[in-house]
Amino acid sequence: MIQRPRGTRDFLPDEMERRRHYESLLREVCRTHCFREVATPIFENTELFTAKSGPNIVDEIYSFQDKGGREISLRPELTAAVMRLFINEMSNHARPLKLFYFGQCFRYERPQSGRYREFFQFGAEIIGAPNAETDAEAIALAHSMVKALGLKEYVLRVGHIGILRGELRSMGIADADMAEILQKLDKKSYDEAAPLLRRHGIDDDGMTSLFEKTQLTGGKELLPGIEGEPGEYLRELFGFLEAYGVDDVLVDIGTVRGLDYYTGVVFEIEAPGLGAEKQVCGGGSYTLSEVLGGEPVFSTGFAIGFDRILLALEKEDHPYTARVPDAFVIAASEDVRPEGLRIASMLRQAGLGADVDLMRRKVSKAMKAASSSGARYVVIVGSKDLAQGGVTVRDMQSGDQELVPLDGLVSHLQS
Amino acid sequence: MIQRPRGTRDFLPDEMERRRHYESLLREVCRTHCFREVATPIFENTELFTAKSGPNIVDEIYSFQDKGGREISLRPELTAAVMRLFINEMSNHARPLKLFYFGQCFRYERPQSGRYREFFQFGAEIIGAPNAETDAEAIALAHSMVKALGLKEYVLRVGHIGILRGELRSMGIADADMAEILQKLDKKSYDEAAPLLRRHGIDDDGMTSLFEKTQLTGGKELLPGIEGEPGEYLRELFGFLEAYGVDDVLVDIGTVRGLDYYTGVVFEIEAPGLGAEKQVCGGGSYTLSEVLGGEPVFSTGFAIGFDRILLALEKEDHPYTARVPDAFVIAASEDVRPEGLRIASMLRQAGLGADVDLMRRKVSKAMKAASSSGARYVVIVGSKDLAQGGVTVRDMQSGDQELVPLDGLVSHLQS
Repeated sequence: MIQRPRGTRDFLPDEMERRRHYESLLREVCRTHCFREVATPIFENTELFTAKSGPNIVDEIYSFQDKGGREISLRPELTAAVMRLFINEMSNHARPLKLFYFGQCFRYERPQSGRYREFFQFGAEIIGAPNAETDAEAIALAHSMVKALGLKEYVLRVGHIGILRGELRSMGIADADMAEILQKLDKKSYDEAAPLLRRHGIDDDGMTSLFEKTQLTGGKELLPGIEGEPGEYLRELFGFLEAYGVDDVLVDIGTVRGLDYYTGVVFEIEAPGLGAEKQVCGGGSYTLSEVLGGEPVFSTGFAIGFDRILLALEKEDHPYTARVPDAFVIAASEDVRPEGLRIASMLRQAGLGADVDLMRRKVSKAMKAASSSGARYVVIVGSKDLAQGGVTVRDMQSGDQELVPLDGLVSHLQS
Repeated sequence: MIQRPRGTRDFLPDEMERRRHYESLLREVCRTHCFREVATPIFENTELFTAKSGPNIVDEIYSFQDKGGREISLRPELTAAVMRLFINEMSNHARPLKLFYFGQCFRYERPQSGRYREFFQFGAEIIGAPNAETDAEAIALAHSMVKALGLKEYVLRVGHIGILRGELRSMGIADADMAEILQKLDKKSYDEAAPLLRRHGIDDDGMTSLFEKTQLTGGKELLPGIEGEPGEYLRELFGFLEAYGVDDVLVDIGTVRGLDYYTGVVFEIEAPGLGAEKQVCGGGSYTLSEVLGGEPVFSTGFAIGFDRILLALEKEDHPYTARVPDAFVIAASEDVRPEGLRIASMLRQAGLGADVDLMRRKVSKAMKAASSSGARYVVIVGSKDLAQGGVTVRDMQSGDQELVPLDGLVSHLQS
């Protein structure tokens, strides 16, 4: 028996229907917020990802040579690809561009709970509007998505990359030296950050105070205390968020991102019910276009881990009831089998979900199949009934059976 | 500037929306016909595809080793994967299984018009019902799909693999020797088939008659002349197809498939408007499960080339009008900007598509942006109007402007 590759999944009908249901909820939120969908290839030239994340990214992704010797990689995320699309094909479109995407991403890592080698991201990017409204619009979209899915327990945290950068600056650390330190702080690897800081003359007290700040999260009462540009920006942003009705949001002082293209606001949504792998959405503002060879342009966006947020919904016992056939059509004898197909076809054309016995079962066995399909009605096609211009319809809930004329069958089943 | 890989495509918003529209039409047909969706990984263990199609398939697909040294390949089609899923995870489900799928497939070949290295297939499989009804159900589904998409010019041809096999058998060629000959006939490579046939003692007249048959297509008047089991099966099938309302269907005597797992009925839908690459759907019955290590099980299915059928629709000038915002909200001055966001948010929550100026434009410039967005209404939020509890709404079609109270805004825009 041939197995599927490690770390990948198959989706069976019930699960797939549930996934499509939640996907369509997210899609609907994008429609009301006037974000429009784009799609990019499953694989990209590897340089796209190394340009964004550095050469070491190759160790974590599916990279290979195609038969023409080109270095290609399965995409580990979609922001780089969407920015490439923007640079190549949409750079002269009216600003801002409000784009969303949904699709598979891939990373080569040890499979574990909630982490797959093939996983799905639903994300959005706003390109070209350098305002706090833009960050607010992105956060409001993510917030509306979480609400639309129905997730009850979540934590939305918003911070600004500039706060800790300013902190380091005030400690006398030059901008050029920050990246390495910020990367350690981002991972809360204080042991590794300490020697770097010490090298820059930071003493133990300074470090303790810095490390504490990287863990500081709180309510809006923290806003007035944030100094400089980051403080001004966040205060404006939180005003806009309130206008959007996003009021269940925390101020996150300790936000750090090690990569240079992050420019300001950073936000995350966590589902605490998920334990260690609790982040279901991450985003912020960035200037990736330049890094990829395009013009400098302000962008902000986020990605929702679709698998993980579905896991969070599952843990909250969100009910999703799979669709059932409206009708299951059974031919009572061989001679009326074509008539059974004709009737199923008529119901389908009327928009009803109609299944039909394809196994030439006897009526009693076919009734069992109909019952386990969950069909609301069974339509029994028999020659005697047909002679009277009708079929027998059984309501599977009540068990009631009646003769229904063929020309009234659709409306009978629709009621 | 980093380019996307050769033979792949980006989909921009208008095109993507059109694709999703047609995808949802196909999805809806699956719903009424009670087919249910499954999904499998983008890549599979390479042996899945070599087991189905032979070792040479590797030359035509994206095959590579992952970091663990496993041979994996981007899927070139989805039937093998769906059968693997069936064997691994659904073999004990009630029969028949009626499954559909939609997704990217990949092949490494020279990109050309209508042929991409990344392309999309929408397909369906019925597993476990060994009857002509099953083939009819599959063909009826494909037919309904083409109708639902609105394709006007198409040719549906149905044949039976057994006809030409019987012909070869009657010429004294053993079943074991047929595969190679059938593969040549499948590609209409008569020059290559001739020496093989000659080796089995077939003379020029016999060959001419055989080659003519491989090109024979006609109306139902051909049915009575088809001998043996294939004839009986096709006559029954065409009776069922008629019951399904599929009456625009040709009998294809010359259908050939070289691979052993094809068992009987084969069908194709062509869009003649596409020229050389005119096949938009191909299917038939097969017993692939055994080949992949599962139990013997009768299956029938098909795949629609989603890109190609969209190309055919495009050539027929099918109109698709992109969605526009219901409203575009503009704040007339800086102080009411949060109020603008609040109103946009209110409209979105009511299910309206509401865009909002994020660029801090002056009203006249923002009106231009609203106009090029195609929005039906512009909502101008100004402090004077707000003092009266309202906003100014401009109907972009008529140019009429009026003051609308905030609590009546949603219903005003919905009308």
